[in-house]
Amino acid sequence: MEVKVVRNLLEANERIAQENKKMFSEEKVYVINLMSAPGAGKTTLIEKTVKALKDNWKIGIIEGDIATAIDAERIMSHGIPVVQINTGSACHLDGNMIRAALGEIPLPSLDFLIVENVGNLVCPAEFNIGEDDKVMILSTPEGSDKPVKYPLMFQESSLLLINKIDLTPYIDCDIREMRENAQKVNPKLDIIEISCKTEEGLDKWFAWLSERIERKTARRI
Amino acid sequence: MEVKVVRNLLEANERIAQENKKMFSEEKVYVINLMSAPGAGKTTLIEKTVKALKDNWKIGIIEGDIATAIDAERIMSHGIPVVQINTGSACHLDGNMIRAALGEIPLPSLDFLIVENVGNLVCPAEFNIGEDDKVMILSTPEGSDKPVKYPLMFQESSLLLINKIDLTPYIDCDIREMRENAQKVNPKLDIIEISCKTEEGLDKWFAWLSERIERKTARRI
Repeated sequence: MEVKVVRNLLEANERIAQENKKMFSEEKVYVINLMSAPGAGKTTLIEKTVKALKDNWKIGIIEGDIATAIDAERIMSHGIPVVQINTGSACHLDGNMIRAALGEIPLPSLDFLIVENVGNLVCPAEFNIGEDDKVMILSTPEGSDKPVKYPLMFQESSLLLINKIDLTPYIDCDIREMRENAQKVNPKLDIIEISCKTEEGLDKWFAWLSERIERKTARRI
Repeated sequence: MEVKVVRNLLEANERIAQENKKMFSEEKVYVINLMSAPGAGKTTLIEKTVKALKDNWKIGIIEGDIATAIDAERIMSHGIPVVQINTGSACHLDGNMIRAALGEIPLPSLDFLIVENVGNLVCPAEFNIGEDDKVMILSTPEGSDKPVKYPLMFQESSLLLINKIDLTPYIDCDIREMRENAQKVNPKLDIIEISCKTEEGLDKWFAWLSERIERKTARRI
């Protein structure tokens, strides 16, 4: 009974996610679903990304949080459209929440939509929202064993950003081992090492994104 | 329909949790449910705690992970009984999983049982397992805004351990603000600042625990 309900929920979600995906294709908007544990650096990464790319591309943000609008307020200061979803108690975003939020964002005028998921290394990976790519962040203080302990998100993602590499002198984290563990659970995973604080590696992330936005919008900058 | 199923699940869990609680009372075992986001330091804290307290109290551990037995193997090296629960895909432990694990642990001979939950700042807080106290860890790199963004776990916990305080010179984390945010969502929350690396503050944690183990076992050491 319980299993059947869960399966029905996931199937219903998949239908809505496919409808979202169709809409994103018609409007030629490249969409990422950005996921990580709490505090890995999603909002800071979005702020840096908006600052670097907003002159080239029209960017919109959907912020998912259980409570508060702290993240939306941080991003709104950059002068781009932001919609806050408060999930109440739900531990992830789903296709339906995104569909509702799309009514409040000027989708036809956008090139690039970033959806910041709820901070959770487990549940968000189970729910497609119609995105082109799932992108995840793992920060060095979380430890190199996380890909094998929480494999689904690593399996579902196109790109892993290893963040807070500036902290490695002060913590026990072997980045080589972290990369090996990630590639063990998903051999096709792209990996970029970054520090949102020192901005090291962010140029590679911007290049990864720009290539995909250009392809989706069929427009070169 | 969905809401009703969720309510039924939570009610069924609560019944089993109460049965577990009764068993823990009869056996005079003090039980904590240790929760945090991935990588906040649960397993390292358990290792330090076992090392410090195992001569005074008989300790047992239940390890909850989605996949792998990495944590159980780390703890087993300390020569105390450990049971590993692999949840498969489930994002939290529940009363029933604990009940099943109790068959494999020598409960009558224990004074203190530590249950390490799945690394997740959201879902574990919804499911009682029959514990005496929920204890949570928030590490400084996760940021001071987390109590207001993920309030339920802070509301449900008796004690918040702020871990990795040795990293504060290298990161943007205002511990005073973190404490204020935590006490805003739960004014009764105890808070202890620790570093599992430098061992600063661990004496306060051991004292907090020892007082509660003495009370539950009705035995002084």
